[in-house]
Amino acid sequence: MEAKDFRTVAIVGAGLVGSGWAVVFANAGRAVRVFDEDAAIRAALPGRVRGMLEDMKAAGLADDVEGALARVSVFDSLAEAVGPADYVQESVHERVELKTAIANAIGRAMRPEAIVGSSASGIVASLFTEEAPHRGRFLVAHPVNPPHLVPIVELVPAPWTEPEVVTSVRALMADVGQVPVTVNREIEGFILNRLQGALLAEAWALLAEGYASAADIDATLTAGLGLRWSFIGPFETMDLNATGGIDDYARRFSGLYQRMAASRGTEPSVWAPEAVERARQERRAAVPFENLAKRRDWRDRRLMALRAHQKGQEG
Amino acid sequence: MEAKDFRTVAIVGAGLVGSGWAVVFANAGRAVRVFDEDAAIRAALPGRVRGMLEDMKAAGLADDVEGALARVSVFDSLAEAVGPADYVQESVHERVELKTAIANAIGRAMRPEAIVGSSASGIVASLFTEEAPHRGRFLVAHPVNPPHLVPIVELVPAPWTEPEVVTSVRALMADVGQVPVTVNREIEGFILNRLQGALLAEAWALLAEGYASAADIDATLTAGLGLRWSFIGPFETMDLNATGGIDDYARRFSGLYQRMAASRGTEPSVWAPEAVERARQERRAAVPFENLAKRRDWRDRRLMALRAHQKGQEG
Repeated sequence: MEAKDFRTVAIVGAGLVGSGWAVVFANAGRAVRVFDEDAAIRAALPGRVRGMLEDMKAAGLADDVEGALARVSVFDSLAEAVGPADYVQESVHERVELKTAIANAIGRAMRPEAIVGSSASGIVASLFTEEAPHRGRFLVAHPVNPPHLVPIVELVPAPWTEPEVVTSVRALMADVGQVPVTVNREIEGFILNRLQGALLAEAWALLAEGYASAADIDATLTAGLGLRWSFIGPFETMDLNATGGIDDYARRFSGLYQRMAASRGTEPSVWAPEAVERARQERRAAVPFENLAKRRDWRDRRLMALRAHQKGQEG
Repeated sequence: MEAKDFRTVAIVGAGLVGSGWAVVFANAGRAVRVFDEDAAIRAALPGRVRGMLEDMKAAGLADDVEGALARVSVFDSLAEAVGPADYVQESVHERVELKTAIANAIGRAMRPEAIVGSSASGIVASLFTEEAPHRGRFLVAHPVNPPHLVPIVELVPAPWTEPEVVTSVRALMADVGQVPVTVNREIEGFILNRLQGALLAEAWALLAEGYASAADIDATLTAGLGLRWSFIGPFETMDLNATGGIDDYARRFSGLYQRMAASRGTEPSVWAPEAVERARQERRAAVPFENLAKRRDWRDRRLMALRAHQKGQEG
């Protein structure tokens, strides 16, 4: 399916995450059908969505609040919300039994060719979709909270998810303004929380050992690493930080980084030559070697623009 | 010494890092005396500094290019540049023998009450200042490249650095617009590169094991973690991501994170209760519990403003 074929989206579970998803899809022109088993949440949903859309409009991230709101409908039953949907985003509480029951209910109510993404952040799809009707149409589509403000979404198929499901949801998410990444097979924590967890483990250790305060460790991100990582990721950062690109960076600095990793017990097999070569090929396909200097100038202009933006926010 | 008492700054080593430092101090009203042993670098310095200042002015980060330039002088000898300086920023190549020789030469030329910061990124001060005259006045002041665009600077004392030296340089760096953090004692990689290295180790492992492409791992930062980390650090991020604050977050998620850390061999002692309690006390002193909801609203407004800024950069 192409992105434009996903015209109708069902939201199952409309707490903080689900209502953010309703905003994402309504703002991108989709018809949105919302269900939550809690009547109070159902009643509050239109007001919450309006508030979020108005905040986004004030920030320049949404144009037509009334138009988007008009595309959102709330239903009293799961079957009614899910029935005509091309895509279902499930965001119920993170408990295996609950996710399993809801997946089974969605499977019974859905059109066979629909696709179901779960906002699960810690539970892989194989743990709760095994018995669901049309289980090949289910995957995890894990957002960061709140999804209408942080665009990343991790797509994680179960072993039985049809490959076409992943590519279709990837196209849909990109089309509605999210940034989809594909996790090729299930792993605890997916990509985002594993990267976050690795940094947090070092941060907690440095705090526990008295090397720095929590405030100073935070500043190391907000005035250092995080500035770059808000527009270039860690691989591109390495690629631009050595004259010869990412393989040159690995040659120069892998020893230092391997010693640091070893001091925490982390396996020293990271920075493996085959992984470096794979990253090099990806980077050179994205930015040819002869364009690296120009890309460094772009990075510096983006850094300056970001700092000017931040100065405006502080004032 | 107070920040205003540092009127004259010497720059020793004027490559990419040193010339960035010259811009930082000149832009902040200090008289800047530059030395590099390479005559070609000395000759090129005024033009490079002008280019950087003009770029900053275009971005709204500098006002008076000519005024700042007029404060920069280039000297043919280290002794002449360093002699009258209140503060010396050394940025020569990262080799212990070279850093040692330069520290000794600076020690002989400096006023006894001056302070010397080294831009060393991987070598601790105790490895190259032991024999330097006035060694108690030396410390590492490690920037991220380029220092005039990324404000973080890590202050790392040697065992013999006088405590007053750290507090004085911290005040100076804050006054010239940098963001100083204090590393209480020497450790390989300091704070920033240890945090970066921990995340990189996980990123390399995920790439090597085929879980995701380098591009998708990069996107996990640029569309996810890095957005938040550009204005709230990892501890504040945790503090705002659970109703009860950072200790609530640790209770809910430390099990998951400890399993992820253990899967890479990292010692599971992180997320120690004493460290969590220390972080909790710091966070509650910074943002009282009753203000957490308001702080979450502020985070969401900053996220929206950042995404609007990014949209403007892409166009």
